[in-house]
Amino acid sequence: MRIITISREFGSGGREFGKRLADALHIPCYDHEIIDMIAEQHGFDKNYVAHFSEKAILAAYPLTIGRRLSVSSAINQQHFDIAGAQRKIIRQFALQGDCVIIGRGADAILRDMCPLNIFVYASLASKLHRCRERATAGETYTDKNLLRIMKKIDQERASLHELVGNTPWGKRESYHLCVNTSDLEIKSLIPALAAFAENWFTQQSDKQYR
Amino acid sequence: MRIITISREFGSGGREFGKRLADALHIPCYDHEIIDMIAEQHGFDKNYVAHFSEKAILAAYPLTIGRRLSVSSAINQQHFDIAGAQRKIIRQFALQGDCVIIGRGADAILRDMCPLNIFVYASLASKLHRCRERATAGETYTDKNLLRIMKKIDQERASLHELVGNTPWGKRESYHLCVNTSDLEIKSLIPALAAFAENWFTQQSDKQYR
Repeated sequence: MRIITISREFGSGGREFGKRLADALHIPCYDHEIIDMIAEQHGFDKNYVAHFSEKAILAAYPLTIGRRLSVSSAINQQHFDIAGAQRKIIRQFALQGDCVIIGRGADAILRDMCPLNIFVYASLASKLHRCRERATAGETYTDKNLLRIMKKIDQERASLHELVGNTPWGKRESYHLCVNTSDLEIKSLIPALAAFAENWFTQQSDKQYR
Repeated sequence: MRIITISREFGSGGREFGKRLADALHIPCYDHEIIDMIAEQHGFDKNYVAHFSEKAILAAYPLTIGRRLSVSSAINQQHFDIAGAQRKIIRQFALQGDCVIIGRGADAILRDMCPLNIFVYASLASKLHRCRERATAGETYTDKNLLRIMKKIDQERASLHELVGNTPWGKRESYHLCVNTSDLEIKSLIPALAAFAENWFTQQSDKQYR
Protein backbone atom coordinates (compact mmCIF):
# COMPACT_ATOMS: atom_id res chain seq x y z
CA MET A 1 0.00 0.00 0.00
CA ARG A 2 1.38 3.41 -0.95
CA ILE A 3 -0.05 6.07 1.35
CA ILE A 4 1.52 9.52 1.31
CA THR A 5 0.63 12.23 3.79
CA ILE A 6 1.43 15.87 3.14
CA SER A 7 1.77 18.26 6.06
CA ARG A 8 2.44 21.86 5.11
CA GLU A 9 2.94 25.41 6.22
CA PHE A 10 0.19 27.76 5.07
CA GLY A 11 1.29 29.42 1.83
CA SER A 12 4.02 26.88 1.03
CA GLY A 13 2.09 25.37 -1.87
CA GLY A 14 1.67 22.07 -0.03
CA ARG A 15 -1.80 21.45 -1.46
CA GLU A 16 -0.65 21.91 -5.04
CA PHE A 17 2.36 19.72 -4.19
CA GLY A 18 0.13 16.92 -2.90
CA LYS A 19 -2.28 17.06 -5.80
CA ARG A 20 0.47 17.05 -8.41
CA LEU A 21 2.34 14.25 -6.66
CA ALA A 22 -0.84 12.14 -6.61
CA ASP A 23 -1.36 12.85 -10.33
CA ALA A 24 2.21 11.84 -11.12
CA LEU A 25 1.77 8.57 -9.20
CA HIS A 26 -1.73 8.00 -10.67
CA ILE A 27 -3.31 7.69 -7.25
CA PRO A 28 -6.18 9.68 -5.70
CA CYS A 29 -5.61 12.76 -3.55
CA TYR A 30 -7.88 13.61 -0.63
CA ASP A 31 -8.22 17.12 0.67
CA HIS A 32 -11.49 18.99 0.26
CA GLU A 33 -12.96 15.68 -0.75
CA ILE A 34 -12.76 14.62 2.90
CA ILE A 35 -14.62 17.72 3.99
CA ASP A 36 -17.21 17.23 1.26
CA MET A 37 -17.93 13.71 2.35
CA ILE A 38 -18.27 14.73 5.98
CA ALA A 39 -20.58 17.54 4.99
CA GLU A 40 -22.66 15.16 2.94
CA GLN A 41 -22.87 12.51 5.64
CA HIS A 42 -23.60 14.93 8.43
CA GLY A 43 -25.70 17.46 6.62
CA PHE A 44 -23.66 20.43 7.83
CA ASP A 45 -23.21 23.47 5.67
CA LYS A 46 -20.12 22.77 3.58
CA ASN A 47 -18.55 26.19 4.05
CA TYR A 48 -19.04 25.98 7.76
CA VAL A 49 -17.42 22.56 7.89
CA ALA A 50 -14.51 23.60 5.69
CA HIS A 51 -13.88 26.61 7.85
CA PHE A 52 -13.78 24.67 11.08
CA SER A 53 -12.27 21.46 9.83
CA GLU A 54 -8.94 21.60 11.64
CA LYS A 55 -10.15 23.44 14.69
CA ALA A 56 -12.80 20.75 14.81
CA ILE A 57 -10.42 17.89 15.40
CA LEU A 58 -8.71 20.02 17.98
CA ALA A 59 -11.97 20.39 19.85
CA ALA A 60 -12.77 16.72 19.59
CA TYR A 61 -10.08 15.58 21.97
CA PRO A 62 -10.72 17.59 25.12
CA LEU A 63 -11.76 14.69 27.29
CA THR A 64 -8.71 12.56 26.58
CA ILE A 65 -6.07 15.26 26.73
CA GLY A 66 -7.67 17.76 29.05
CA ARG A 67 -7.57 20.63 26.56
CA ARG A 68 -10.48 22.32 24.83
CA LEU A 69 -11.38 25.31 22.75
CA SER A 70 -13.76 27.70 24.43
CA VAL A 71 -16.76 26.81 22.32
CA SER A 72 -20.35 26.29 23.36
CA SER A 73 -21.32 22.70 24.03
CA ALA A 74 -23.59 22.64 20.97
CA ILE A 75 -20.81 23.72 18.62
CA ASN A 76 -18.42 21.42 20.44
CA GLN A 77 -20.70 18.46 19.78
CA GLN A 78 -20.69 19.38 16.08
CA HIS A 79 -16.88 19.61 16.16
CA PHE A 80 -16.68 16.25 17.83
CA ASP A 81 -18.89 14.69 15.17
CA ILE A 82 -16.80 16.22 12.39
CA ALA A 83 -13.48 15.21 13.93
CA GLY A 84 -14.59 11.66 14.57
CA ALA A 85 -15.97 11.40 11.05
CA GLN A 86 -12.76 12.83 9.58
CA ARG A 87 -10.63 10.29 11.41
CA LYS A 88 -12.89 7.46 10.24
CA ILE A 89 -12.94 8.73 6.66
CA ILE A 90 -9.15 9.21 6.57
CA ARG A 91 -8.72 5.59 7.68
CA GLN A 92 -11.33 4.41 5.21
CA PHE A 93 -9.56 6.19 2.36
CA ALA A 94 -6.22 4.72 3.37
CA LEU A 95 -7.67 1.20 3.65
CA GLN A 96 -9.20 1.50 0.19
CA GLY A 97 -5.78 1.78 -1.44
CA ASP A 98 -2.88 3.96 -2.54
CA CYS A 99 -3.51 7.67 -1.99
CA VAL A 100 -2.18 11.08 -1.00
CA ILE A 101 -3.86 12.73 1.99
CA ILE A 102 -3.21 16.41 2.65
CA GLY A 103 -3.24 17.80 6.18
CA ARG A 104 -5.76 16.94 8.89
CA GLY A 105 -3.22 15.01 10.97
CA ALA A 106 -3.30 12.06 8.56
CA ASP A 107 0.36 11.25 9.25
CA ALA A 108 -0.48 10.73 12.92
CA ILE A 109 -3.87 9.09 12.32
CA LEU A 110 -2.33 6.55 9.91
CA ARG A 111 0.94 5.93 11.75
CA ASP A 112 0.25 2.19 12.07
CA MET A 113 -0.07 1.95 8.28
CA CYS A 114 3.50 3.30 7.74
CA PRO A 115 2.75 6.13 5.31
CA LEU A 116 5.45 8.20 3.62
CA ASN A 117 5.20 11.50 5.50
CA ILE A 118 6.29 14.65 3.66
CA PHE A 119 6.47 18.17 5.08
CA VAL A 120 6.29 21.15 2.71
CA TYR A 121 7.57 24.55 3.87
CA ALA A 122 8.95 27.81 2.55
CA SER A 123 10.47 31.13 3.56
CA LEU A 124 8.11 33.85 4.81
CA ALA A 125 8.77 35.96 1.70
CA SER A 126 7.95 33.08 -0.58
CA LYS A 127 4.77 32.22 1.35
CA LEU A 128 3.59 35.83 1.19
CA HIS A 129 4.22 35.82 -2.56
CA ARG A 130 2.23 32.60 -3.03
CA CYS A 131 -0.66 33.92 -0.95
CA ARG A 132 -0.79 37.09 -3.04
CA GLU A 133 -0.69 35.09 -6.28
CA ARG A 134 -3.61 32.89 -5.34
CA ALA A 135 -5.73 35.60 -3.72
CA THR A 136 -9.04 36.17 -5.49
CA ALA A 137 -9.91 39.60 -6.88
CA GLY A 138 -11.10 41.92 -4.16
CA GLU A 139 -8.98 40.38 -1.40
CA THR A 140 -6.88 43.19 -0.02
CA TYR A 141 -4.86 41.82 2.84
CA THR A 142 -1.80 43.72 4.00
CA ASP A 143 1.42 41.74 4.50
CA LYS A 144 0.94 42.14 8.24
CA ASN A 145 -2.56 40.66 8.02
CA LEU A 146 -1.39 37.79 5.88
CA LEU A 147 1.46 37.00 8.26
CA ARG A 148 -0.99 36.99 11.16
CA ILE A 149 -3.33 34.59 9.32
CA MET A 150 -0.41 32.35 8.31
CA LYS A 151 0.85 32.15 11.86
CA LYS A 152 -2.61 31.43 13.26
CA ILE A 153 -3.35 28.65 10.77
CA ASP A 154 0.04 27.02 11.30
CA GLN A 155 -0.46 27.20 15.06
CA GLU A 156 -3.82 25.46 14.65
CA ARG A 157 -2.18 22.78 12.53
CA ALA A 158 0.53 22.28 15.12
CA SER A 159 -2.02 22.04 17.94
CA LEU A 160 -4.10 19.58 15.98
CA HIS A 161 -1.04 17.44 15.35
CA GLU A 162 -0.09 17.50 18.98
CA LEU A 163 -3.51 16.19 19.88
CA VAL A 164 -3.88 13.41 17.31
CA GLY A 165 -0.31 12.10 17.52
CA ASN A 166 2.86 11.97 19.54
CA THR A 167 5.18 13.55 16.96
CA PRO A 168 5.64 17.32 16.78
CA TRP A 169 4.23 19.11 13.73
CA GLY A 170 6.83 20.69 11.48
CA LYS A 171 9.86 19.08 13.14
CA ARG A 172 11.92 17.11 10.64
CA GLU A 173 12.01 14.05 12.95
CA SER A 174 8.29 13.59 12.27
CA TYR A 175 8.75 13.26 8.50
CA HIS A 176 10.62 11.22 5.94
CA LEU A 177 11.26 14.18 3.66
CA CYS A 178 11.01 17.96 4.17
CA VAL A 179 10.86 20.05 1.02
CA ASN A 180 11.51 23.79 0.96
CA THR A 181 9.49 25.25 -1.93
CA SER A 182 10.84 28.82 -1.59
CA ASP A 183 10.92 30.51 -5.00
CA LEU A 184 10.38 27.20 -6.77
CA GLU A 185 7.77 26.16 -9.31
CA ILE A 186 6.19 23.13 -7.69
CA LYS A 187 5.10 21.52 -10.95
CA SER A 188 8.64 20.88 -12.17
CA LEU A 189 9.81 19.51 -8.80
CA ILE A 190 7.28 16.68 -8.95
CA PRO A 191 8.97 14.11 -11.25
CA ALA A 192 11.98 13.85 -8.91
CA LEU A 193 9.78 13.63 -5.82
CA ALA A 194 7.52 11.02 -7.41
CA ALA A 195 10.69 8.99 -8.13
CA PHE A 196 11.75 9.45 -4.50
CA ALA A 197 8.34 8.20 -3.31
CA GLU A 198 8.41 5.19 -5.66
CA ASN A 199 11.87 4.23 -4.39
CA TRP A 200 10.86 4.74 -0.77
CA PHE A 201 7.89 2.37 -1.11
CA THR A 202 9.99 -0.19 -2.98
CA GLN A 203 12.51 -0.19 -0.13
CA GLN A 204 9.74 -0.56 2.46
CA SER A 205 8.20 -3.51 0.69
CA ASP A 206 11.61 -5.16 0.09
CA LYS A 207 12.22 -4.88 3.84
CA GLN A 208 8.86 -6.47 4.58
CA TYR A 209 9.68 -9.58 2.56
CA ARG A 210 13.31 -9.93 3.67
CA MET B 1 27.42 26.89 -10.92
CA ARG B 2 26.04 23.84 -9.12
CA ILE B 3 27.30 23.71 -5.55
CA ILE B 4 25.68 21.27 -3.15
CA THR B 5 26.42 21.24 0.56
CA ILE B 6 25.59 18.25 2.72
CA SER B 7 25.07 18.72 6.44
CA ARG B 8 24.38 15.55 8.36
CA GLU B 9 23.78 13.91 11.69
CA PHE B 10 26.52 11.52 12.73
CA GLY B 11 25.53 8.00 11.67
CA SER B 12 22.90 9.11 9.16
CA GLY B 13 24.98 8.06 6.15
CA GLY B 14 25.37 11.68 5.04
CA ARG B 15 28.90 11.15 3.77
CA GLU B 16 27.91 8.21 1.60
CA PHE B 17 24.91 10.28 0.47
CA GLY B 18 27.14 13.19 -0.60
CA LYS B 19 29.67 11.02 -2.38
CA ARG B 20 27.04 9.07 -4.29
CA LEU B 21 25.15 12.23 -5.20
CA ALA B 22 28.35 13.77 -6.57
CA ASP B 23 29.02 10.61 -8.58
CA ALA B 24 25.51 10.65 -10.02
CA LEU B 25 25.93 14.29 -11.07
CA HIS B 26 29.49 13.68 -12.33
CA ILE B 27 30.93 16.41 -10.13
CA PRO B 28 33.70 16.23 -7.51
CA CYS B 29 32.98 15.67 -3.83
CA TYR B 30 35.10 17.25 -1.10
CA ASP B 31 35.31 15.80 2.36
CA HIS B 32 38.54 14.25 3.62
CA GLU B 33 40.12 15.83 0.58
CA ILE B 34 39.78 19.20 2.32
CA ILE B 35 41.53 17.88 5.40
CA ASP B 36 44.24 16.30 3.28
CA MET B 37 44.96 19.52 1.49
CA ILE B 38 45.10 21.49 4.74
CA ALA B 39 47.43 18.90 6.19
CA GLU B 40 49.63 19.09 3.14
CA GLN B 41 49.73 22.88 3.10
CA HIS B 42 50.32 23.22 6.82
CA GLY B 43 52.42 20.20 7.51
CA PHE B 44 50.29 19.04 10.42
CA ASP B 45 49.86 15.38 11.12
CA LYS B 46 46.88 14.29 9.03
CA ASN B 47 45.23 12.26 11.79
CA TYR B 48 45.54 15.12 14.19
CA VAL B 49 43.98 17.52 11.70
CA ALA B 50 41.18 15.12 10.82
CA HIS B 51 40.39 14.60 14.46
CA PHE B 52 40.19 18.30 15.24
CA SER B 53 38.84 19.55 11.94
CA GLU B 54 35.42 20.71 13.13
CA LYS B 55 36.47 21.66 16.61
CA ALA B 56 39.16 23.66 14.87
CA ILE B 57 36.79 26.00 13.09
CA LEU B 58 34.91 26.36 16.34
CA ALA B 59 38.06 27.54 18.05
CA ALA B 60 38.90 29.92 15.25
CA TYR B 61 36.08 32.35 15.99
CA PRO B 62 36.51 33.16 19.67
CA LEU B 63 37.50 36.78 19.17
CA THR B 64 34.51 37.70 17.02
CA ILE B 65 31.83 35.90 18.95
CA GLY B 66 33.27 35.79 22.41
CA ARG B 67 33.25 32.01 22.71
CA ARG B 68 36.24 29.72 22.86
CA LEU B 69 37.22 26.19 23.61
CA SER B 70 39.45 25.73 26.61
CA VAL B 71 42.56 24.97 24.62
CA SER B 72 46.11 26.13 25.13
CA SER B 73 47.08 29.15 23.08
CA ALA B 74 49.48 27.05 21.00
CA ILE B 75 46.81 24.55 20.02
CA ASN B 76 44.39 27.41 19.54
CA GLN B 77 46.76 29.02 17.06
CA GLN B 78 46.93 25.72 15.17
CA HIS B 79 43.12 25.53 15.19
CA PHE B 80 42.91 29.04 13.90
CA ASP B 81 45.30 28.23 11.07
CA ILE B 82 43.34 25.12 10.17
CA ALA B 83 40.00 26.89 10.31
CA GLY B 84 41.14 29.80 8.20
CA ALA B 85 42.70 27.44 5.67
CA GLN B 86 39.52 25.33 5.57
CA ARG B 87 37.37 28.35 4.85
CA LYS B 88 39.71 29.47 2.08
CA ILE B 89 39.91 26.00 0.57
CA ILE B 90 36.12 25.54 0.69
CA ARG B 91 35.70 28.82 -1.19
CA GLN B 92 38.44 27.87 -3.65
CA PHE B 93 36.77 24.54 -4.36
CA ALA B 94 33.41 26.24 -4.89
CA LEU B 95 34.91 28.88 -7.20
CA GLN B 96 36.59 26.18 -9.28
CA GLY B 97 33.25 24.74 -10.35
CA ASP B 98 30.36 22.39 -9.63
CA CYS B 99 30.89 20.25 -6.54
CA VAL B 100 29.46 18.60 -3.44
CA ILE B 101 30.97 19.67 -0.11
CA ILE B 102 30.24 17.62 2.97
CA GLY B 103 30.10 19.25 6.40
CA ARG B 104 32.52 21.85 7.74
CA GLY B 105 29.92 24.63 7.65
CA ALA B 106 30.15 24.91 3.86
CA ASP B 107 26.47 25.91 3.60
CA ALA B 108 27.17 28.94 5.78
CA ILE B 109 30.60 29.70 4.31
CA LEU B 110 29.22 29.66 0.75
CA ARG B 111 25.87 31.36 1.43
CA ASP B 112 26.59 34.17 -1.05
CA MET B 113 27.09 31.58 -3.81
CA CYS B 114 23.56 30.19 -3.34
CA PRO B 115 24.35 26.49 -2.92
CA LEU B 116 21.70 23.78 -2.69
CA ASN B 117 21.80 22.89 1.00
CA ILE B 118 20.74 19.38 1.97
CA PHE B 119 20.43 17.99 5.49
CA VAL B 120 20.64 14.23 6.05
CA TYR B 121 19.27 12.72 9.25
CA ALA B 122 17.88 9.48 10.67
CA SER B 123 16.27 7.91 13.71
CA LEU B 124 18.52 6.99 16.63
CA ALA B 125 17.95 3.28 16.02
CA SER B 126 18.92 3.61 12.38
CA LYS B 127 22.04 5.67 13.21
CA LEU B 128 23.16 3.09 15.79
CA HIS B 129 22.68 0.36 13.20
CA ARG B 130 24.75 2.26 10.60
CA CYS B 131 27.54 2.92 13.12
CA ARG B 132 27.68 -0.78 13.99
CA GLU B 133 27.76 -1.75 10.31
CA ARG B 134 30.69 0.51 9.50
CA ALA B 135 32.69 -0.17 12.66
CA THR B 136 36.03 -1.76 12.02
CA ALA B 137 36.91 -5.10 13.57
CA GLY B 138 37.96 -4.73 17.19
CA GLU B 139 35.76 -1.68 17.88
CA THR B 140 33.56 -2.66 20.77
CA TYR B 141 31.42 0.33 21.65
CA THR B 142 28.28 -0.20 23.68
CA ASP B 143 25.08 1.46 22.45
CA LYS B 144 25.40 3.91 25.33
CA ASN B 145 28.93 4.84 24.24
CA LEU B 146 27.89 5.24 20.63
CA LEU B 147 24.95 7.47 21.58
CA ARG B 148 27.28 9.62 23.65
CA ILE B 149 29.73 9.98 20.74
CA MET B 150 26.89 10.74 18.31
CA LYS B 151 25.49 13.42 20.56
CA LYS B 152 28.90 14.98 21.14
CA ILE B 153 29.80 15.11 17.44
CA ASP B 154 26.41 16.54 16.47
CA GLN B 155 26.75 19.16 19.21
CA GLU B 156 30.15 20.14 17.80
CA ARG B 157 28.64 20.40 14.33
CA ALA B 158 25.83 22.58 15.62
CA SER B 159 28.26 24.84 17.50
CA LEU B 160 30.46 25.16 14.45
CA HIS B 161 27.48 26.10 12.31
CA GLU B 162 26.33 28.65 14.83
CA LEU B 163 29.72 30.31 14.65
CA VAL B 164 30.28 30.35 10.90
CA GLY B 165 26.74 31.35 9.92
CA ASN B 166 23.48 32.82 11.09
CA THR B 167 21.27 29.83 10.38
CA PRO B 168 20.76 27.10 12.95
CA TRP B 169 22.26 23.67 12.22
CA GLY B 170 19.72 20.92 11.72
CA LYS B 171 16.66 23.18 11.56
CA ARG B 172 14.77 22.67 8.32
CA GLU B 173 14.64 26.44 7.67
CA SER B 174 18.40 26.35 7.02
CA TYR B 175 18.09 23.81 4.18
CA HIS B 176 16.38 23.29 0.85
CA LEU B 177 15.76 19.61 1.43
CA CYS B 178 15.92 17.39 4.53
CA VAL B 179 16.17 13.66 3.90
CA ASN B 180 15.47 11.05 6.56
CA THR B 181 17.58 7.99 5.72
CA SER B 182 16.16 5.75 8.48
CA ASP B 183 16.18 2.10 7.39
CA LEU B 184 16.86 3.10 3.77
CA GLU B 185 19.59 2.01 1.41
CA ILE B 186 21.16 5.31 0.38
CA LYS B 187 22.41 4.08 -2.98
CA SER B 188 18.97 3.55 -4.43
CA LEU B 189 17.67 6.92 -3.18
CA ILE B 190 20.25 8.80 -5.22
CA PRO B 191 18.73 8.86 -8.74
CA ALA B 192 15.61 10.69 -7.45
CA LEU B 193 17.68 13.12 -5.41
CA ALA B 194 20.05 13.80 -8.29
CA ALA B 195 16.97 14.62 -10.40
CA PHE B 196 15.75 16.93 -7.63
CA ALA B 197 19.11 18.70 -7.58
CA GLU B 198 19.20 19.06 -11.38
CA ASN B 199 15.71 20.58 -11.36
CA TRP B 200 16.54 22.88 -8.46
CA PHE B 201 19.57 24.30 -10.28
CA THR B 202 17.61 24.67 -13.52
CA GLN B 203 14.97 26.69 -11.67
CA GLN B 204 17.63 28.88 -10.05
CA SER B 205 19.30 29.64 -13.36
CA ASP B 206 15.95 30.27 -15.10
CA LYS B 207 15.17 32.79 -12.35
CA GLN B 208 18.51 34.48 -12.87
CA TYR B 209 17.83 35.10 -16.56
CA ARG B 210 14.15 36.01 -16.20
